[in-house]
Amino acid sequence: MLVLENNNVTTEQVKEFDKKYNLHSWSVQGTLNPMVIEKAEGIYFWDSEGKKYFDMSSQLVNINVGHGNKKIIEAIKKQADKMAFMGPGYAIDVRSMLAKKVIEKAPDNMGKVFFTLGGSDSNENAIKIAKMFTGRNKIFSRYRSYHGASYGAANLTGEPRRYTCEPGISGFVKFFDPYIYRAGIEFESEEDASKYYVDKLREQLIYEGAENVAAIFLETVTGSNGVIIPPKGYLKGVREICDEFGILMVCDEVMAGWGRTGKWFACENFGVKPDIITFAKGITCGYIPFGGVIVDKKIAEYFDNNMLMCGLTYNAHPMGCAAGIATLEVYEEENLIENSRKMGKVLGELLEDIKEKHPSVGDVRYIGLFSAVELVKDKNTREALVPYGKDPDKIMSRVIGMLKEKGFSTYHHENNIMIAPPLIIKEDELREAMSIFDRVMCFVDEYIKRTI
Amino acid sequence: MLVLENNNVTTEQVKEFDKKYNLHSWSVQGTLNPMVIEKAEGIYFWDSEGKKYFDMSSQLVNINVGHGNKKIIEAIKKQADKMAFMGPGYAIDVRSMLAKKVIEKAPDNMGKVFFTLGGSDSNENAIKIAKMFTGRNKIFSRYRSYHGASYGAANLTGEPRRYTCEPGISGFVKFFDPYIYRAGIEFESEEDASKYYVDKLREQLIYEGAENVAAIFLETVTGSNGVIIPPKGYLKGVREICDEFGILMVCDEVMAGWGRTGKWFACENFGVKPDIITFAKGITCGYIPFGGVIVDKKIAEYFDNNMLMCGLTYNAHPMGCAAGIATLEVYEEENLIENSRKMGKVLGELLEDIKEKHPSVGDVRYIGLFSAVELVKDKNTREALVPYGKDPDKIMSRVIGMLKEKGFSTYHHENNIMIAPPLIIKEDELREAMSIFDRVMCFVDEYIKRTI
Ligand SMILES: Cc1ncc(COP(=O)(O)O)c(C=O)c1O
Ligand SMILES: Cc1ncc(COP(=O)(O)O)c(C=O)c1O
Repeated sequence: MLVLENNNVTTEQVKEFDKKYNLHSWSVQGTLNPMVIEKAEGIYFWDSEGKKYFDMSSQLVNINVGHGNKKIIEAIKKQADKMAFMGPGYAIDVRSMLAKKVIEKAPDNMGKVFFTLGGSDSNENAIKIAKMFTGRNKIFSRYRSYHGASYGAANLTGEPRRYTCEPGISGFVKFFDPYIYRAGIEFESEEDASKYYVDKLREQLIYEGAENVAAIFLETVTGSNGVIIPPKGYLKGVREICDEFGILMVCDEVMAGWGRTGKWFACENFGVKPDIITFAKGITCGYIPFGGVIVDKKIAEYFDNNMLMCGLTYNAHPMGCAAGIATLEVYEEENLIENSRKMGKVLGELLEDIKEKHPSVGDVRYIGLFSAVELVKDKNTREALVPYGKDPDKIMSRVIGMLKEKGFSTYHHENNIMIAPPLIIKEDELREAMSIFDRVMCFVDEYIKRTI
Repeated sequence: MLVLENNNVTTEQVKEFDKKYNLHSWSVQGTLNPMVIEKAEGIYFWDSEGKKYFDMSSQLVNINVGHGNKKIIEAIKKQADKMAFMGPGYAIDVRSMLAKKVIEKAPDNMGKVFFTLGGSDSNENAIKIAKMFTGRNKIFSRYRSYHGASYGAANLTGEPRRYTCEPGISGFVKFFDPYIYRAGIEFESEEDASKYYVDKLREQLIYEGAENVAAIFLETVTGSNGVIIPPKGYLKGVREICDEFGILMVCDEVMAGWGRTGKWFACENFGVKPDIITFAKGITCGYIPFGGVIVDKKIAEYFDNNMLMCGLTYNAHPMGCAAGIATLEVYEEENLIENSRKMGKVLGELLEDIKEKHPSVGDVRYIGLFSAVELVKDKNTREALVPYGKDPDKIMSRVIGMLKEKGFSTYHHENNIMIAPPLIIKEDELREAMSIFDRVMCFVDEYIKRTI
């Protein structure tokens, strides 16, 4: 029984009080046995028994700079001393400076930023902004997307985490994403696939009344639903439809933004400029909860003469602003965007090998240090290892458990395993971690052969 | 032109960048000229010209312990050094300890807590929890309430800040609050008023199908809409109806909780135990964004065997937990709950004098250090100084401007001025601040006489 430094509780008590008093997200509480974590540094964290883990999902794909970054910690401490809080109505140095920095990093059509506390909040406010600016009511978003858990963000979401926020909000419409691996159609090329999906979207917009649609929301690269990367030409096609009908294109870069895909913003990979970008996670890497909505110049101008009906007690929080400035400087000083691209190349090669080698690996998708491994029962039929929305035997949790047991920490969604390490990872570390993954996939191959 | 310490920007630049790059909440951006704030300490803050203000609204009624509290700052710095972030799935010391502390402070029927980032988030999650637990769909809440700005919280909200989140979510129903001053009925007693409003609520529930109603949300004491205090017996009556129909009673204590009304939780003033309490603000006083949902034991138990479909990347954030623990200790060590009661008594007396003296002051309402002054054109007819939802001549902003000019900082909502200083305020400070208020009300009396 370890005694935690500086706090008068033991590990046993941490566990006991946790189970007794805390409600944990997305879980059946009775079956939980949460690991007690005592230390985290760089790409690693340690449990209370001293066991070390590669943080191969960067927690919830947020801790891009790794744990314990000294520069961000110093910035937090300095701001705490100076001014931990000041209402959002006032101008303060860090609020102005971060806003300037964000707009400078963003695509050149962008004008202003509204700072929030996280991803859901950002999408909530983006919905409101799009409705106010266009005067229209309908909102399009995609199946197999996750945009957050509050009512508005959940109604954007195209997967089961939406269901508790139903009956849904009127005017929220879903369309299909270009998930080529399970398209049910054989396309000649990526461009062909893009044409098909863009044409279908256009058709659906017309059925819904394109002139009533305020915005199309999409994750630039779909994250938790399996790192689904848009085929060549797809996002440009969506951009064209938006222009044709005066619809705002909103890219949710909560997970994909801030270097994850090897660019500052994921949309840069695809040569498109959205009208609105929502972000969170990587802006402060979660050291302080933070997020934001970037709007382009025409939208910013609109609110010069019209009331922005958005607000949070803690929007543009000084602590988040200070952490954000330091985080962006870390990306620059440590060349992390470049490292994401470079290590992403290595990761891609390793993943292709893994796919080649393992019958249980149906597909691998990767861009920068953002990737997913999709598990199947059968490589030919592509039958998913677990059916959509169901896993009564907890097969996927068991795979995650095997990885964890070997020191590889990550999470899964449906039959996809997320691999998205901190952007500071070095090549030898990446190879070491992925060799654990490779070995565990052998067990999975075996397991599938045996049980299915 | 001051040069800001430690940051390479001048005051002029802070202002310039703020106007150029930041979107400010609830405002027409073009008309904004945000004050630059450089320092804050205790119950005061200072602008870039060195002018000092009494913070008589505790910013947005959140900074209960005042600015720059050393103990909380130290806790934040320590946690930043130790572990700024760890995913919500893990048990960590501060997460367990704060949960324990919150449940110990809460009414004795309470079981567990789900930690969030702010007030809106807390209400979003409370809605979902109530729907999951009861299996019912309808949600009751009141006119003249504010519960937050995200879709779910905004749909609870009974005032214009809801409108951008409309068309509304189906199943959200509004009822009238017991706003005696504008009831349109003369009641014999508070108890009579309570009986009337509770009976009407019961009648409305029956019309809506009480068996379909998951929860009744109410601010225990309505905050931003004018500190409307429930008449004697009202909350008990609501509690009885909830028990009768198996409806959850949810008290939103985002503003009223954590000592603001002279008790840890406002519901203690009225002898009721809600099924769910939502909170934010005072838990960390905004030093780190934080909030939560407290659920009673039967609800906590339900989720032992049922999936809690709630989650945020940053729920139960370590930095917020650390700040929360320190904040609760500050309340205890500095006897702030008691001071809120004591100073509240002084404030109440001063407010009654002000009401007596000024023709423009129609009503004053106060409990602990939570109060509002309601301005009227005519004390007899009770005609509001500005009509509901409208103030084309910006009369109320001008009153707030006059107060600010004299060093008394606060805000208004409709024709109500909020007075809710930090709970650390001393009697001489309170008297000094309120004498400024008194003097400004003379101007308002004059102004009204002249212009209306
Ligand atoms: C793409 C995307 N959008 C929005 C969110 C919601 O963010 P948060 O959990 O901070 O509310 C997430 C969270 O994972 C996300 O991945
Ligand atoms: C009673 C009440 N509930 C909810 C909220 C929303 O809190 P937040 O702004 O932190 O989302 C507020 C904010 O003022 C409030 O006063």
